[in-house]
Amino acid sequence: MTIKDLAKKCGVSVSTVSRVLNNRPDVSAEVREKVLDEAKKNHYVRNDAARDLVKPQQDTMGLIVRGADNIFFTEVMKSIEDAAEENGYILSLRQIASDGDELKAGAKLAKSKKLRGIIFLGGRSDYKKEEFEVIDIPSVFCTYSNRFGDLGRGSFSSVGIDDEAESEKATEYLINKGHRKIAIITNGKNDSAVGEARYRGYLNALAKNGINEDPSLVVETGSYDLYDVYSSVRSLISSGSEFSAVFAISDAMAIAAVRCLYDSGIYVPADVSVISIDGIVTSRYVIPSLTTVSQPKRDIGRTAFSLLMDIINGDRENESIFLPGTLIEGESVRKI
Amino acid sequence: MTIKDLAKKCGVSVSTVSRVLNNRPDVSAEVREKVLDEAKKNHYVRNDAARDLVKPQQDTMGLIVRGADNIFFTEVMKSIEDAAEENGYILSLRQIASDGDELKAGAKLAKSKKLRGIIFLGGRSDYKKEEFEVIDIPSVFCTYSNRFGDLGRGSFSSVGIDDEAESEKATEYLINKGHRKIAIITNGKNDSAVGEARYRGYLNALAKNGINEDPSLVVETGSYDLYDVYSSVRSLISSGSEFSAVFAISDAMAIAAVRCLYDSGIYVPADVSVISIDGIVTSRYVIPSLTTVSQPKRDIGRTAFSLLMDIINGDRENESIFLPGTLIEGESVRKI
Repeated sequence: MTIKDLAKKCGVSVSTVSRVLNNRPDVSAEVREKVLDEAKKNHYVRNDAARDLVKPQQDTMGLIVRGADNIFFTEVMKSIEDAAEENGYILSLRQIASDGDELKAGAKLAKSKKLRGIIFLGGRSDYKKEEFEVIDIPSVFCTYSNRFGDLGRGSFSSVGIDDEAESEKATEYLINKGHRKIAIITNGKNDSAVGEARYRGYLNALAKNGINEDPSLVVETGSYDLYDVYSSVRSLISSGSEFSAVFAISDAMAIAAVRCLYDSGIYVPADVSVISIDGIVTSRYVIPSLTTVSQPKRDIGRTAFSLLMDIINGDRENESIFLPGTLIEGESVRKI
Repeated sequence: MTIKDLAKKCGVSVSTVSRVLNNRPDVSAEVREKVLDEAKKNHYVRNDAARDLVKPQQDTMGLIVRGADNIFFTEVMKSIEDAAEENGYILSLRQIASDGDELKAGAKLAKSKKLRGIIFLGGRSDYKKEEFEVIDIPSVFCTYSNRFGDLGRGSFSSVGIDDEAESEKATEYLINKGHRKIAIITNGKNDSAVGEARYRGYLNALAKNGINEDPSLVVETGSYDLYDVYSSVRSLISSGSEFSAVFAISDAMAIAAVRCLYDSGIYVPADVSVISIDGIVTSRYVIPSLTTVSQPKRDIGRTAFSLLMDIINGDRENESIFLPGTLIEGESVRKI
């Protein structure tokens, strides 16, 4: 059914139907009701492609999600979607693989959808100035920053936890519980991204407490895949290196690590303590429940969205916002 | 950078650049290489909005995901994205809330993006004919069917497991292990969707084995939220009803149920056995690991995509494909 058919059915002009559908005030209540009624009855769907030709959608934000199989992102996405809806914005979403190019995806989406702004959920922490130039509309990095890149202060915005500081906090929690032989499980200690930032926080905590780094306790899994995590922890155990605690850089990794230890007859927390970061829902239900630094997922998403709106409206400059994590005590850490 | 700038930089005409970018054969290899090289170096991004005006994107498929916070969907989505890429299609994705209207979202996306076809990942199982009429391009329901609706055979396509049969299989597995007092945990036994289909499978298994339904063992959580699952299982335990096994209709629900039992001093599988459906990655790493009917997630996604392509190309008619689940024996079930 076209807008013409609908107009005919209602006995009014096409422009009257159009005024109703565009929520314009200059239509009588009866006509408005009749048109909406018939539109509903006849399952009329507006042709937005045609509308886009005459009027750019000035109310669309882009959301590029990188590494969409990250459980942790689900809750953040939800809060961004909620914020968009509450503020009357359409959210255009693109998911790309962990190794996809979020800047290219963002630039493409910005042009094709005439976006007002973009939120990048997940991405690299090492953008170079000239790479980032393809993004010529306001944007906010969500859950990561530009820690390892060369974008100048004021030339980008970000909202997330301070990965290095929160990891230091997690590691220090283990130290305060009497642990000194602490293994770290990271996807990579030189990934120029979250893995590296969290590894640095671990090193800071060791240094502050006079503990030397033991390279045999630094486990690099090469990915976030749980099977890789399991195998890497198995190698750590086989190596015979002694450790009384593990800092895993994500909850999902911690679940796989706990399982691997269990399969080797090493129980958490009786034999080894485990702490992680994220605070995914499942972390509260697994046995043992995880002691973890919970990220303020709802706040991160909502703050990213409002920062982006403010930048678009000229009410704020670019800034990097770090929100605090909350240490949740589960059952996976024991005082020794 | 515009296409004009790029052409100037390469010392060729705009139409030559356009031919290269559209993968047309009538360009020399050197020129092609030069153009692609400069495009990359200068981070040139095509303006697809402009291109859409002259040439409809005939190669775009829509993917509407309903209930995007369902962990199980992540792997299915990944395989649909892979299939789209391998076959040269663009995938336009929309995520909507669990209570969102996927038909409306699909109809809107179909018009605005000029889609060739749509995959609905997750959705209601009770569409009525007149509701479904808003979708006037080929579509495939993925991971669900039209079990409770009135779409005639041949008027829709679907790919998924047979929820009723697989639930019967799971329940019967418990019965074969000696269990007769089996509780079911479902979001709702009359939800006209997956919850109801799986409840029916549970009833079938009981009936086939001469076991009467005990209404006090039917736990309706009202949602897929793990906190609701935990509370509902707590009520079941407090009620004093006896049971030696639990069939949870999803792995995530099973994890929350195992935890609730554990908190009440009831251990799995020593005291109570638990089986579920899905086969999410985490189910293999939790303690105890779950005995579950694993859905063929990759196959479901790929089959849905190729069925949709075949329908579009006129090579196949609408059909409903049921793929078999695989019972994975974990540690959560014990013979009694």
